[in-house]
Order: sequence, then structure tokens, then C-alpha cells
Amino acid sequence: MTAPGDLTIGVDIGGTKVLGGVVDAAGTVIAQARRDTAARDTSKTLELIVEVVEELTREHTVTAVGIGAAGWLDRDRSRVLFAPNLAWRNEPLRDLVAERIDLPIMIENDANAAAWAEFRYGAAKAATDSMALFTIGTGIGGGLVLGGQIIRGANGIAAEMGHVRVVPSGLPCGCGRLGCLEQYASGTALVRYAREWALADPGSAGILLDLAHGALDALTGPMVTRAARAGDRAAGAAFAEVGRWLGSGLADLVLVMDPEVLVVGGGVIEAGELLMGPTRDAFSEQLAARGRLPVAPVVAAQMGNTAGVVGAADLVRR
Amino acid sequence: MTAPGDLTIGVDIGGTKVLGGVVDAAGTVIAQARRDTAARDTSKTLELIVEVVEELTREHTVTAVGIGAAGWLDRDRSRVLFAPNLAWRNEPLRDLVAERIDLPIMIENDANAAAWAEFRYGAAKAATDSMALFTIGTGIGGGLVLGGQIIRGANGIAAEMGHVRVVPSGLPCGCGRLGCLEQYASGTALVRYAREWALADPGSAGILLDLAHGALDALTGPMVTRAARAGDRAAGAAFAEVGRWLGSGLADLVLVMDPEVLVVGGGVIEAGELLMGPTRDAFSEQLAARGRLPVAPVVAAQMGNTAGVVGAADLVRR
Repeated sequence: MTAPGDLTIGVDIGGTKVLGGVVDAAGTVIAQARRDTAARDTSKTLELIVEVVEELTREHTVTAVGIGAAGWLDRDRSRVLFAPNLAWRNEPLRDLVAERIDLPIMIENDANAAAWAEFRYGAAKAATDSMALFTIGTGIGGGLVLGGQIIRGANGIAAEMGHVRVVPSGLPCGCGRLGCLEQYASGTALVRYAREWALADPGSAGILLDLAHGALDALTGPMVTRAARAGDRAAGAAFAEVGRWLGSGLADLVLVMDPEVLVVGGGVIEAGELLMGPTRDAFSEQLAARGRLPVAPVVAAQMGNTAGVVGAADLVRR
Repeated sequence: MTAPGDLTIGVDIGGTKVLGGVVDAAGTVIAQARRDTAARDTSKTLELIVEVVEELTREHTVTAVGIGAAGWLDRDRSRVLFAPNLAWRNEPLRDLVAERIDLPIMIENDANAAAWAEFRYGAAKAATDSMALFTIGTGIGGGLVLGGQIIRGANGIAAEMGHVRVVPSGLPCGCGRLGCLEQYASGTALVRYAREWALADPGSAGILLDLAHGALDALTGPMVTRAARAGDRAAGAAFAEVGRWLGSGLADLVLVMDPEVLVVGGGVIEAGELLMGPTRDAFSEQLAARGRLPVAPVVAAQMGNTAGVVGAADLVRR
């Protein structure tokens, strides 16, 4: 059994990597192991999970393994029902790992694990009861904590804030809906805005065009971030547009769940106030009529790319 | 102190009435008292609350009074900070009532009280953990239960699903935002749709026009319901349009909170399947891509116009 002071392993499985870490009771990652993964090969992914855990347990004595996986889990968190960016379909992941590793195994949605890490050790650690995490990457992931517990939902599909509809008959989303927030406030949307702006007004996008060597099709999120930081107007406008949509999405979440704090994470927060400023402005504007009432602060995530590892490790320790 | 088997009083305060009831531990209203209220006079509203409670306690021995009020409450539920349809502004309602009535007094948001009644005794009574109530009236009210508890939010503004933005730069809302769900899926929107349809195609609105004596400005929600039931095409189309927006709003809520059951209440549910059918269709369509996963059923509320009374009485008993 796992005691509060034990070391545990957290493993974060994304579309391109398996990242494992030995985590102590203070949320510190004291060792890491990583493998790149071929997302479409489920047996290979399982091998890599086992490899990462075996590598870490060679040097450290741990009492349990928590796995954060990018997919929807069944109610008792033993199966991955569906993973948009991995090949799992109704995969009994917990049991498959347990057959190979002689430690208690827990699986959790990766965004939930990251939210838990921010709640326990990161940007929301001052919150006592509730928080919301919006992770802005290629898409939008999210996690919610309420009553000091992760909200998983009755059918395991809670905290999909990226798939709330914000534009009727809007852009098509990979989820099958039209007009999802993810289409307007993700890293993918950021690049699209920058490209559109640069096409319409190349004179405002000199830095961006240089970084992309003139090929707007080759534009990436990190390029938009670098250009915006260097003062490129098109790139700055793209962040402002993402911020406007995200701020409104955060306001929508406040009107439903009203958490103590709203945390924005993911790669795009490396842009700092270029993103967070417009996000907070839009958030405040969308809740202006609630001016009589206090609302949650909007803050940047603090756990970086080990959030999923720390969260999964902490959840299995509890 | 209040014991589980005691009788308690619930009082529901809306914009036009104060309705009180003596409620037993099975959620049955065994006596009622009602006063019409002048919404803009706070001292008069207080008098009516006292009158209703005194009338009920003359015949029944009760141990506590729960009050459901249409407004935002402070964190410890002693003050009504703001009431859109009543004159309360930072009103210390609990203490004002307690000065006049020698019983434990609790106040709660009226929509939360109604949601609680549906969760405990009504359409969601089979749910063990979570539910959402959307009350469709002049506006849209709502209540959420999760972990067997009402979600009140860190700042008391949770469960305002009617004020989630569903159309960017959409219709202005009394709350100060543009494009709130309430502008598209409320009783007010129902009447607007029926009026627009009847203007555009009077031939499809014969029954409606008869009921309104040809004066579309005089159209009311109940008229639209009667006309739709009688087969009026314009009125039916208005319900279908409300259902489309409402179904999408319910889908949005599922993607955030994923409750066990979604309950639709308010006056418009008297239209039965004319509303619920299109609502369920839109809900399913908006979640079609989640077809691999089960989702919550969408059902009509069962507690009628005493939901707030029963919920407030039950909450104070606990």
C-alpha cells in the first residue's frame, strides 16, 4: 500500500512521447525517463510504458504507478475507451500494464492529471476547493477540480471545455461539432490567425515572414510566439485574437462552475502577457455586468511539461 | 435543531409572488400560503415572507424555514447581493427574517432550491451524485448538483447557464453580455420566434393570430403553447427553434460537467414533446461524435411550481 510520504511514478502518455518521472510527496520530480512513441501502435506504446517504469524503478523504490493518458476512460478508470491522438480503442490499459509491472497501477486522463498537479502544487495551490485548467496546445484540453476532487463526470466526458460550441455553424472540429472553442482559441487557431493576418497585410508581418522563410504554410506556433515577442504586429494580433476567444470561454466556465481560480496552460503560455493580457481583458469585459461580484483570477500554469507526470504520481499516492 | 423527520417550511420568492409551504420529510407539501408581491418594495416583500410563515405556523409545528430567493447570495448565504427582478441590493435577508421569526432561517438561490427538489424528489431522484436543471421561463435559470451537493461556486455565481455566450456579438442580454443562451432558448425567445414566423408567413400562423386577436405584440408564451398544441405551424416552429438552442446548450453543459441527468423545467415544458423532442434531437446531434460514450438522459422536470418550496424546505432540514 502507498503511504503519504512514499515515492511514486507518474507516466504521461501523449501523441508523441511517453514521459515518466519519480515524484516525491512534495511534488518534486527526482528522476525522469522518456521515450518517443509511434502513436498508432498500441503494443509499442505499452512496451514503452513498461520500459520507462522499469528504467525508473532500477534506481528508485516506488510504491505505485499513476498513468496519465490522452483519452477518454471508462467509469472505473481501467480502460481507455477512445484516444483522439493514439490508437487505443476500448483498450484495457490498466490491466495490460498491471500484467507487466508488479505495482499498483492507476490510470487517469492526462488533462485531469495536469489539472490536479496545478491544484496541488502549481498555479492553483492556494485554492482550497476548486479550479479550472485550460491547456492550450494543438487543441484545448482541460481539467476541473471541485470539492477538492477531479470532476470526471458521470460518463467520463467532463472538462471538455475545448468542445463547447462558441460559434453556431462555425468551423468544423475533429470532434464532429461545428464551432467548438478549440477552433478559435487553440495553438492551431493561433497559427491560422497569424497566417491570415500576414496574407492580408504582409507589411505588418515582416518578422513572421522572415522566420517562416516566406512560406506561410510552414508557420508554427513557436514561430508566432517568437515573432510576437520580437514585436511583429501580425503575430501580436494573432495572440490577441486567441486571448479574446479564450477570455470569453473562461467567462462561460465561470458562469457554470465559478471556480476559485482559472489556470491557463500549454505551450502558448510561453508568450506570457502577449496571451494572458488579452485573455484577462476579454474575461473581465465578458463578466463586466457581474462587477458587483468578485470573480476568479486568471493565471498562467506553473507546472510546465511535467504537470501530467506529477499529477498522475500524486493521484496514485492518494 | 432540525431532525430528519421534522416538518419545515419552504418559501419561494419570485418577481411576482411569495409562495410558502409546509413540507414533510417525503417532500410532500402539506399546506401552502401565497401572496402576490410588488417586486420593487423590499420592506413589503419582507412583510409578506413573515405573513406567509406566520399563517403556516398557526396550523403546523415546524422546526425551520428555508427561503429560496431569485438573486445572487453572498458566500455564507446571509445576504442577497443582487436580485435582477427584485429590489434587493446587498440585503441582509436572513437576519431581517430571523429578527421577525423565531426559527432557524436559511436562504438559498431559488433555482438552486428547485434543482435540489428535482434531485431529491423529482425528475432526477434516481441520480446518486449529479444533475443539471435548466429552468426555461422569461429567462433561463439553472441549478447544478455534483457530489450530492448544490454547486454554489467560489463567488456564488455558478449555474448561470442562461448567461453562457452562444452567439458572438449576438443579441444583447439584460446581464450586459451579448449572445447569451437566454436570448435564444427562453420563453421570451419562444414568443419572439413565433412572432417573427407569423410575420413572415401569416398563413402558417392562423391559430396563433386568432389567439392573439391579430395583435402579435400581445402574444404570450402560453398562447404559443396552446397554438402549437393545436397544430399551428408557426408556434411549432418556435418550439423547435427553442429546442435546437436548448439542446445545444445542454450538450455544452455535458462537455463541461457531464451530469447523470439533465432536467428541463419552467413554464414552457407544458408544451411537452413539442419542446422536449427538438431539444433531445439537437442534444443528440451535438454529441453525435461522442456516440461511443453514453451521455445523460434529457428529461422534463416533475416538481412543478412548488419545486422551490420543496427544495428550500428540504435544504433547511438537512
